[in-house]
Amino acid sequence: MHRTKVRVATDVLDANATIARANRADFDRAGVRVVNLMSAPGAGKTALLERVLIDGLPAVRPGVLEGDVQGSFDADRLSALHVPVTQLNTDPGFGGECHLDANMVRSALGAIALEEIDLLIIENVGNLVCPAEFRVGEDARAMISSVTEGEDKPLKYPLMFRACELVVINKIDLLPHLDFSLERFLENLDRVHPGVEHMLVSARTGEGVDAFAGWLVAVARGGAPAA
Amino acid sequence: MHRTKVRVATDVLDANATIARANRADFDRAGVRVVNLMSAPGAGKTALLERVLIDGLPAVRPGVLEGDVQGSFDADRLSALHVPVTQLNTDPGFGGECHLDANMVRSALGAIALEEIDLLIIENVGNLVCPAEFRVGEDARAMISSVTEGEDKPLKYPLMFRACELVVINKIDLLPHLDFSLERFLENLDRVHPGVEHMLVSARTGEGVDAFAGWLVAVARGGAPAA
Repeated sequence: MHRTKVRVATDVLDANATIARANRADFDRAGVRVVNLMSAPGAGKTALLERVLIDGLPAVRPGVLEGDVQGSFDADRLSALHVPVTQLNTDPGFGGECHLDANMVRSALGAIALEEIDLLIIENVGNLVCPAEFRVGEDARAMISSVTEGEDKPLKYPLMFRACELVVINKIDLLPHLDFSLERFLENLDRVHPGVEHMLVSARTGEGVDAFAGWLVAVARGGAPAA
Repeated sequence: MHRTKVRVATDVLDANATIARANRADFDRAGVRVVNLMSAPGAGKTALLERVLIDGLPAVRPGVLEGDVQGSFDADRLSALHVPVTQLNTDPGFGGECHLDANMVRSALGAIALEEIDLLIIENVGNLVCPAEFRVGEDARAMISSVTEGEDKPLKYPLMFRACELVVINKIDLLPHLDFSLERFLENLDRVHPGVEHMLVSARTGEGVDAFAGWLVAVARGGAPAA
């Protein structure tokens, strides 16, 4: 039973990798670099994007692909910022997919004006498990971890913390009010992904957001670590 | 393509429902009532359980089934409390399942001394999407939502907020430090699940934890709303 299931999983991931390469080829042809932004629900992906897009990215024209199970709450928030935003809902696929896959992103490509942007930021469905398994054709992956989620998260969701080039530690304005040891979190992160780049930010106060914007600009210019 | 996928999904959920009924029959025979505890990663399920188990449940003998992708961090935390804890890892099944299903719980039944407990608390994998779709044979479902996750979560993950008999709003000690309107959260909750029972707690300060313990005792005695 398990063996069959693993084989099905391998087939699914192989098919996904093939479509992800096709997406990547299309993005490359259009000169668009792509970031896959992942986190648990409520870690602050949208709030961080809002901050970055309000401040602007120097000499980079960003676009956003919003992945949600249903609704367009985040896309509505971001579209007020005069940035092209495309909504992608996962609920027609299954009972509501808990992640974006390469084929879903492919189905949205026709709705994105790739010639008008240099950087596509894909906001994945809030989930610390499955998004890590499905590449979508991105150049780099960033995952956002909120300090309110606890120090143990790298150990409990190691694949997610491994499958990224950047870990953004968000909501650091709340540190004085939490029993959270940043040192222990970083030790746990180092155990699952030694040497991964990380940065401390607060989307609420704006602290550290410029560093994240700088990372996005570096990806857009081809400078950040390739996935 | 989508139609095939939906049919596969229906088959999977039908098979799950059959096994969930078998689990339920076994629990009923053993006189054990079962709670399925669900939330996003880091919402505080384990911390809340710790509090409840330290204080104790009057005249109820609890046991815990810990669902995690891998590792036994939460089980290790809880087993210090002299409560029978069984670890169930989802990673052998797929690349790491993002939820418990009825068959996984069934596979763990032999490891749980049902005759020694009255209430089995199943801590699901931290995820706001798939756990809501898979019943495991429980009598009641509680979902924990942390105020740090934002007011929009009921609208973004409606199935999860619908598929439960209780919504525990956790980390209320942080309310003074957040831009979080409890009123708006409750309005959003009312839109997706009108009239669902909710309670405000802080696993950290202990505020409201007695109400959650009371709810668990009511389930154990057969008094809480049936799923």
